[in-house]
Amino acid sequence: MYSLPWSRNVPVKASATNRLWRRCFSVTRAGASQLAGLDPSKLVITKTSTPQEPTAPKDLVFGKTFTDHMLSVEWSAANGWHAPQIVPYQNLSLDPATCVFHYAFECFEGMKAYKDSQGRIRLFRPEKNMERLNKSSSRIALPTVDGGALTKLIGELVKLDSKLVPDLRGYSLYLRPTMIGTQKTLGVGPPGSALLFVIASPVGPYYPTGFKAISLEATDYAVRAWPGGVGDKKLGANYAPCVVPQLHAASRGLQQNLWLFGEEEYVTEVGTMNLFIALKNKETGQKELVTAPLDGTILEGVTRDSVLGLARERLVPKGWAVHERKITMREVAEASEEGRLLEVFGSGTAAIVSPVRMISYKGKMVGCGLKESEEAGEIALQMKNWIEGIQYGDEDHPWR
Amino acid sequence: MYSLPWSRNVPVKASATNRLWRRCFSVTRAGASQLAGLDPSKLVITKTSTPQEPTAPKDLVFGKTFTDHMLSVEWSAANGWHAPQIVPYQNLSLDPATCVFHYAFECFEGMKAYKDSQGRIRLFRPEKNMERLNKSSSRIALPTVDGGALTKLIGELVKLDSKLVPDLRGYSLYLRPTMIGTQKTLGVGPPGSALLFVIASPVGPYYPTGFKAISLEATDYAVRAWPGGVGDKKLGANYAPCVVPQLHAASRGLQQNLWLFGEEEYVTEVGTMNLFIALKNKETGQKELVTAPLDGTILEGVTRDSVLGLARERLVPKGWAVHERKITMREVAEASEEGRLLEVFGSGTAAIVSPVRMISYKGKMVGCGLKESEEAGEIALQMKNWIEGIQYGDEDHPWR
Repeated sequence: MYSLPWSRNVPVKASATNRLWRRCFSVTRAGASQLAGLDPSKLVITKTSTPQEPTAPKDLVFGKTFTDHMLSVEWSAANGWHAPQIVPYQNLSLDPATCVFHYAFECFEGMKAYKDSQGRIRLFRPEKNMERLNKSSSRIALPTVDGGALTKLIGELVKLDSKLVPDLRGYSLYLRPTMIGTQKTLGVGPPGSALLFVIASPVGPYYPTGFKAISLEATDYAVRAWPGGVGDKKLGANYAPCVVPQLHAASRGLQQNLWLFGEEEYVTEVGTMNLFIALKNKETGQKELVTAPLDGTILEGVTRDSVLGLARERLVPKGWAVHERKITMREVAEASEEGRLLEVFGSGTAAIVSPVRMISYKGKMVGCGLKESEEAGEIALQMKNWIEGIQYGDEDHPWR
Repeated sequence: MYSLPWSRNVPVKASATNRLWRRCFSVTRAGASQLAGLDPSKLVITKTSTPQEPTAPKDLVFGKTFTDHMLSVEWSAANGWHAPQIVPYQNLSLDPATCVFHYAFECFEGMKAYKDSQGRIRLFRPEKNMERLNKSSSRIALPTVDGGALTKLIGELVKLDSKLVPDLRGYSLYLRPTMIGTQKTLGVGPPGSALLFVIASPVGPYYPTGFKAISLEATDYAVRAWPGGVGDKKLGANYAPCVVPQLHAASRGLQQNLWLFGEEEYVTEVGTMNLFIALKNKETGQKELVTAPLDGTILEGVTRDSVLGLARERLVPKGWAVHERKITMREVAEASEEGRLLEVFGSGTAAIVSPVRMISYKGKMVGCGLKESEEAGEIALQMKNWIEGIQYGDEDHPWR
């Protein structure tokens, strides 16, 4: 059972949008039958007969090249999780009436495996991804899974394809656990069968030649997520509708869109990343790192959580304040005008951090604290180095 | 280019939710390349070598049995629509990285073909489905399609499988045009390729032994759609999140859930149907048929439109008022208490109309005007007969 405590940590003032948050939205899990649990000891491996050679690192494109094998586990309402299989990477063959094609019974995770200086392969906080996968799947009546068992199986897949995990700094193996409903009827109801699969894509650094700050268009004509909706879950449903606003931003020369919410125009997410804002407090001058609170409209990003954790551990002792709080676009624009906006960056698994140069908002360009010669602010740089240090095992840390 | 004029026909009063509607949300189409248009003259038909015998009408289950063939048309950003094909009903073979599995690039239509008393097969207002399909696809950066050409191709499919179209009254061939993104990369962007397919399922009447009124649970803990969201489009994304609230309602013995919106608790949709409420005006006593306005959170149901059209044509002359307006759950409950609630019914392609007996709301059961011995109200009965009369060609009407 999980619930979304809408009011926790959310400062409430009397306003149109905020009145909506006061209601206690909460969706409890259903249809999350376990029956036979996922059992790694039953793993059957069928190796490819045509292993590939590693792609040259410079030719890697995010999510385009895949390794030789995939993990595949079927689930049925009658029998629970079937024996897991690692098989050669191959097409899925599905009846055209399968519910994943019609009603978006699908959720996924994004995580990476890193090769450290000793050639050992490491996952970064996989338990966070497993926890989120179960929140996502149960919200759409797909089964939950034992996160430890799935992590172990992912480890087996990575081990089998380990020669395809790039060993250069900034390179990694992107892992995509995906769960889809496979029932082949058009009635709308809880899927009686599902498929969990994991594919793996060797990827290079998001910014191969160093950071390149992006500019954003503040989107006020469409809304990504809302109270009582599913915007905090990693469902396929949240992604397709994001593309047209991205294309609009691109048509005006801006690399991504910034999602605002409500008449207050709260800053929520950037494209498919969480967003961080570093600014000086108007009254006290204290440096603050701010991100939107997990109020049910914000994806519970693992990188978001890592940035927050490191900020509390390493920036607070230096005098910073760290806040998960609602922040309006007007507040950001005002901080920019008054020279108090230090930096803005997105956070996500692909880029770790993604510095922002400017935000187009109501016909004006809001500068985000970078000098013309700079492509990243101090905090973004530091966070990338800290997080990579842990991911690649340079630093001993509980998150490895 | 289309836009969503949020304020049109929507009475606005100063309230939390209503302030949200005042903003002019509008998403213009993108990525809707036409290039080579859909060309029915290029149709290639490959017939099945194992034709099936019709299933006994009594054994038909909605969306479970399919005909011998399917229509399939590929699209690519480089070449537009490829030559359409009718092929034996078969599995789709797709790379596990295909974007439909990860980001819900998928939309669909629901429509029916009816066999009239002369054995001719008829579609009901297919142009409405085609129009909506294009609104749906372009909102998620999938291509649009010439509706006339697609209707013609659907006609060819129906003709080929015509012996599987049941010819009993209330029976029909349910048609499911579906469009999915088929690009096989994990980057989130406009799909460079897509597949349009149409499958067909012989179906019986929704209520084989006559109407059976359903009872609803008013859902106040989850929200289906939001201004600026995609709830008015027939996207897969809108369906998977509906199932858990349905299961919750079912666990309390109620057949469907009723979606409320905002702090006013506007009545919006029931499960995956539009909703109609017939009541007597508190002041004037005039009979009114009310349904939620197309403000961007309501699916533009073809049956909804048909019910409205027939009500204006045939009920208004009898003294009824027909309103597309916002109506709160409190207003419905008050009308019930005061004996002014005449009837409530859902509308959709599957059931045409679906009478409602009671709504569970804040711990009370709100009666919806039916006597204990009744399974449907007068208007629901009339609408079903009128619409079926047109669908089966008993009546000459512009909608055939």
